[in-house]
Amino acid sequence: MRYELYYWPGIQGRGEFVRLALEEAGADYVDVARLAGPGRGIAAMERLLENTGTSRPPFAPPFLKAGRVVIAQTANILLYLGPRLGLVPRGEASRLWAYQLQLTISDFVAEIHDVHHPISGSLYYRQQKREARRRAGYFTRERFPKFLGYFERVLDAHSKGGKYMLGSHFSYVDLSIFQLIAGLRYSFPKTMKKYEDEFPGLLALHDLVAARPNVAAYLASERRLPFSEHDVFRHYPELEGR
Amino acid sequence: MRYELYYWPGIQGRGEFVRLALEEAGADYVDVARLAGPGRGIAAMERLLENTGTSRPPFAPPFLKAGRVVIAQTANILLYLGPRLGLVPRGEASRLWAYQLQLTISDFVAEIHDVHHPISGSLYYRQQKREARRRAGYFTRERFPKFLGYFERVLDAHSKGGKYMLGSHFSYVDLSIFQLIAGLRYSFPKTMKKYEDEFPGLLALHDLVAARPNVAAYLASERRLPFSEHDVFRHYPELEGR
Repeated sequence: MRYELYYWPGIQGRGEFVRLALEEAGADYVDVARLAGPGRGIAAMERLLENTGTSRPPFAPPFLKAGRVVIAQTANILLYLGPRLGLVPRGEASRLWAYQLQLTISDFVAEIHDVHHPISGSLYYRQQKREARRRAGYFTRERFPKFLGYFERVLDAHSKGGKYMLGSHFSYVDLSIFQLIAGLRYSFPKTMKKYEDEFPGLLALHDLVAARPNVAAYLASERRLPFSEHDVFRHYPELEGR
Repeated sequence: MRYELYYWPGIQGRGEFVRLALEEAGADYVDVARLAGPGRGIAAMERLLENTGTSRPPFAPPFLKAGRVVIAQTANILLYLGPRLGLVPRGEASRLWAYQLQLTISDFVAEIHDVHHPISGSLYYRQQKREARRRAGYFTRERFPKFLGYFERVLDAHSKGGKYMLGSHFSYVDLSIFQLIAGLRYSFPKTMKKYEDEFPGLLALHDLVAARPNVAAYLASERRLPFSEHDVFRHYPELEGR
């Protein structure tokens, strides 16, 4: 099956959590909005968003077309792909647990985004800079260590059984943790540095994922877009304090 | 199986989406943190949150204990309960679709919460009132009609086949839409009034759900907590403009 991924071209964004899963598994997929030609490009994506051609329209990208099914919401796409790409263990309890972690990552990503957009997604950052700065203080002092501390604790609780988030079984959760750490290093380098010693497991996991052959090949390719200030993870030095 | 629901006592919050599913299905459950006695009360909840007694700790309430499994994240709990309580159709595509809608409801609920807490959850509303007012303007003008317009469109696309979010099959998504409409009526009465004519399907669905015997009995009981200004849906008249 050739999967069709639909996401804003030019940014990693939430689509990146799906891309990493597809790339790690060596899945056959096309990144529709980044291609030109009939049925391709951003127009094809907008057609699906505008509800023409599907009775189950997505609210927002990313979404995945798999045959006739259109699946939206990052975590939902991973729920669907996980078993198909061998990126989640068998057994309902393990899958619910993987999924629970993924939803907690999604919550964290939403908070990370809202640090630079605390008022509205329809305003530019510069139009909400004052509020962003205030939110960033609470984010770096409270939310940042709270979320990462939780993930480190989860990793640690499983450490007898393995080095991955679910223990000995590599999963899409590990790929998402990689992206989270990479994104936070880009966007909050000082804060990462400050807390570095508190999350040795997560940093080791980041490196382990980055070294996986398919992931390494992907990261070195042109398919991996660079981080930027149009994306979820943005580097604004003024949001880190001194 | 007797389910154990763990959530902050005194508020509906995100726990309410789970309570409604359990109540509609007439499931055997206890609302642990609201009870007194050994293994009950808020201390029992905090014990699980602090990671003692489980290697798969929740990040935050609500969570559900089902036998030996502990499941957190509202949408994940519904993913688990849906098939068991007969609140989702058979068939993977339908279940993913139900789930996708639930995640979109979760996103909306998070945005609704952040209207009164745009800076930090660790500050009181009065400490971020200025920012809340600014965010509220964008919320009521843009996000409110965007989300509800989307859900109305989904309902409408299925209207030939039925009156529920998934068509002819009643599901946990309908219960969540009920809660959303009830909560928005409480928190943003003027805004609801203003847009009322644009969402006739959602309002009819709200009434349909409220009239279901088990839901009606629940809403009339003491188990249904009142809306309040300690909750996700808060009524602050100043956040609606004139």
